[in-house]
Amino acid sequence: MAHVDPGVKMTVKEFAEFGSRLKIEHEGQILDVTFIKRDGNELVFKLSSGYNVRFSFNTVKLIESLEESHSSNNHSMEMATIGNGSRKISLLSTGGTISSKVDYATGAVKPTEDVSFILDSIRDIKDKITLKAKIIDSILSENMQPDNWIRTGRLVKKALDEDDAVILLHGTDTMSYTASALAFMFERQKGPIILTGSQRSSDRPSSDAFENIESSVRFSMERFGEVGICMHSSISDGSSSLIRGVRARKMHTTRRDAFRAIETGELGTIREKKVSLNNDIKHPDAENIFSDKLDQAAGIYYFNPLSNQEDLESFSSRKKAVVIMATGLGHVAERLLPKIRELTDAGKHFVITSQCLFGRVDLEVYASGRKLLAAGAVPLENMLPETALAKSMYVLAHYPDEFEKWMTKNLRGEISERSLLHGEI
Amino acid sequence: MAHVDPGVKMTVKEFAEFGSRLKIEHEGQILDVTFIKRDGNELVFKLSSGYNVRFSFNTVKLIESLEESHSSNNHSMEMATIGNGSRKISLLSTGGTISSKVDYATGAVKPTEDVSFILDSIRDIKDKITLKAKIIDSILSENMQPDNWIRTGRLVKKALDEDDAVILLHGTDTMSYTASALAFMFERQKGPIILTGSQRSSDRPSSDAFENIESSVRFSMERFGEVGICMHSSISDGSSSLIRGVRARKMHTTRRDAFRAIETGELGTIREKKVSLNNDIKHPDAENIFSDKLDQAAGIYYFNPLSNQEDLESFSSRKKAVVIMATGLGHVAERLLPKIRELTDAGKHFVITSQCLFGRVDLEVYASGRKLLAAGAVPLENMLPETALAKSMYVLAHYPDEFEKWMTKNLRGEISERSLLHGEI
Repeated sequence: MAHVDPGVKMTVKEFAEFGSRLKIEHEGQILDVTFIKRDGNELVFKLSSGYNVRFSFNTVKLIESLEESHSSNNHSMEMATIGNGSRKISLLSTGGTISSKVDYATGAVKPTEDVSFILDSIRDIKDKITLKAKIIDSILSENMQPDNWIRTGRLVKKALDEDDAVILLHGTDTMSYTASALAFMFERQKGPIILTGSQRSSDRPSSDAFENIESSVRFSMERFGEVGICMHSSISDGSSSLIRGVRARKMHTTRRDAFRAIETGELGTIREKKVSLNNDIKHPDAENIFSDKLDQAAGIYYFNPLSNQEDLESFSSRKKAVVIMATGLGHVAERLLPKIRELTDAGKHFVITSQCLFGRVDLEVYASGRKLLAAGAVPLENMLPETALAKSMYVLAHYPDEFEKWMTKNLRGEISERSLLHGEI
Repeated sequence: MAHVDPGVKMTVKEFAEFGSRLKIEHEGQILDVTFIKRDGNELVFKLSSGYNVRFSFNTVKLIESLEESHSSNNHSMEMATIGNGSRKISLLSTGGTISSKVDYATGAVKPTEDVSFILDSIRDIKDKITLKAKIIDSILSENMQPDNWIRTGRLVKKALDEDDAVILLHGTDTMSYTASALAFMFERQKGPIILTGSQRSSDRPSSDAFENIESSVRFSMERFGEVGICMHSSISDGSSSLIRGVRARKMHTTRRDAFRAIETGELGTIREKKVSLNNDIKHPDAENIFSDKLDQAAGIYYFNPLSNQEDLESFSSRKKAVVIMATGLGHVAERLLPKIRELTDAGKHFVITSQCLFGRVDLEVYASGRKLLAAGAVPLENMLPETALAKSMYVLAHYPDEFEKWMTKNLRGEISERSLLHGEI
């Protein structure tokens, strides 16, 4: 949230940067209002009286934001310790819907630091665990950046050194990006790291927060060494799944079962509170080996019929590695190849994933694919684009001189051995 | 395919631009070779003797390309007229796998102009139709650009003025982009426009080309006014579906049933050669109203945790409209909002779709979404990103002063009335 200099009257154009509660000036009057929405050339505010007013753009000046910052506040607040059982679990909250509440002033959902609902989720199992809950951040996940991943990773490492398992509360929007980043940062891990969140905040009757936390705690009592995402596996309550972070993707904007294991089985499922783990889940390592080095000079380029050399060049200009979401088997237009060749020769990396999301890329099938290979592009089998982004950052930082070798090597299960040809798309 | 000046010896760096058959110089020798692939710092060629050789990058110079151009050749070749039945159908081939064959020199699939297999597809029904087949282009669909859409659209319009229905053979990679563009270009249409293609070329035993053409012809005998995509609806033969072009997406790199109707029912299905159409398919119009005006100043931006203001600004610099593939309900990081506000004030448009692909965007749920609205972004319900790109080009060209109004209005079924909450993702 931007700092507001109280001496400067800002125009309505800057409003979008600020929180909902504002002090504004309108036709000589100073008003404390809640910003509701833009509607064409007008802005809608709720007055402290409860009434809504509409002011046109040019008649309003911002005096100051009355809102406290909810973004990354770099504290790490000890909240509670629950139970005194033998399995030691750290629950770290980064924010997101699961730790948000409805703001009844506006109807919008906003972060909160009250996570007492966690206790309600785990009454059944609290005798078996000692769960330490901490708030480490209060951020909606669309605002997560690599610096947040690094800070979170360090705190997860510290927690996993002390305890048996870590649960991370996280917004769902970029949960699979964070899960992928953590998976690469942990070369070895001696226990489960489980990300969970919710599609409805915990103060809504239909919230999936409680069951997702309960299921995450149940999974965290098992012995394995993976970064997984635990969420509902159907639209109704009663079943959850654990998905390998590097193979997970949010595939629906609102459904509780939005997260899917793309082209791979789930790591585990819970039905009627019974956990079952699949055979290919990785055993825990003897120790934690963690690196917080990530190179941020990477990006995702969505190829389409309007893509041209100029665009690709300007997009690539501040990057060392570009994940191309190509079409079909991994194709891009032939008109881009000279630019890819030129930029590859200049030391940049282009890795190829598919905007189909399901299925492998294969640049050997078509003549055009072979030309893309010859231009220096590196196909990534069935790696997901978001996973390829996180992996690029890790490989650039750790193996800059062997980028292609490490990108195409399966490190954390990010390339699945075979595609599930008969599964649901 | 680039023109090769025979007087200029080019280095291997340019090879990727050229076709497979090349005249090269290697250590003083002139060789006619077939380019196979790049492998690390080496290039692999097949000699005319049939043997493969590997030459390192720096030892090879290109003398000339021996390949004929297969790219857009602006001809329109009358191929055949089949049958003399009453239903008049134009089949126009733009290229793609469905009109490609395996090049046994390299094992790669390349375009061909031999589409005689069409006849094999429609033996059963040829007495009921008069089908005129024409090759209008010979292009793999990753190379399709708006100029190809415009030329194709004009030829489809001409064909639909004369005949009852049009079938377009097209590569699958960008088929849904072309279908969307055609849907907007045809404000009214007096008969079916059906795009079809294949995931395996017609000379492979497992080809889906024959059944896809047969099913397209069966659909084209029905009376409706939609642009649809006809492909396999299961991994085995025997069932096909017709999907509204603006709601279709290629969701698998290789499967025959790669195309899915996202969040909407199919327009029709064929099982055991029986056609059934859904009730919501649009009736044919009395006339064709077609416009070939498309503004190409648009693009797709894939938001992710590494996105920053600088990137968004440079990506937007040559565009009037940017389709943002945002996270979840349509969120982008708060750090981008001042730039979106600034660029919106400068007259650019930002429309919001979701990288989840399934489900609606909704910027009213979270405080952060409301701020994005206030910054001037326009949410597009459950419109697909690729469809939003084609629609932006159409709206920019036709209603530049009412962009938001027309983008959010459902013109061709691109916004489905309700999301299918219980369907497969």
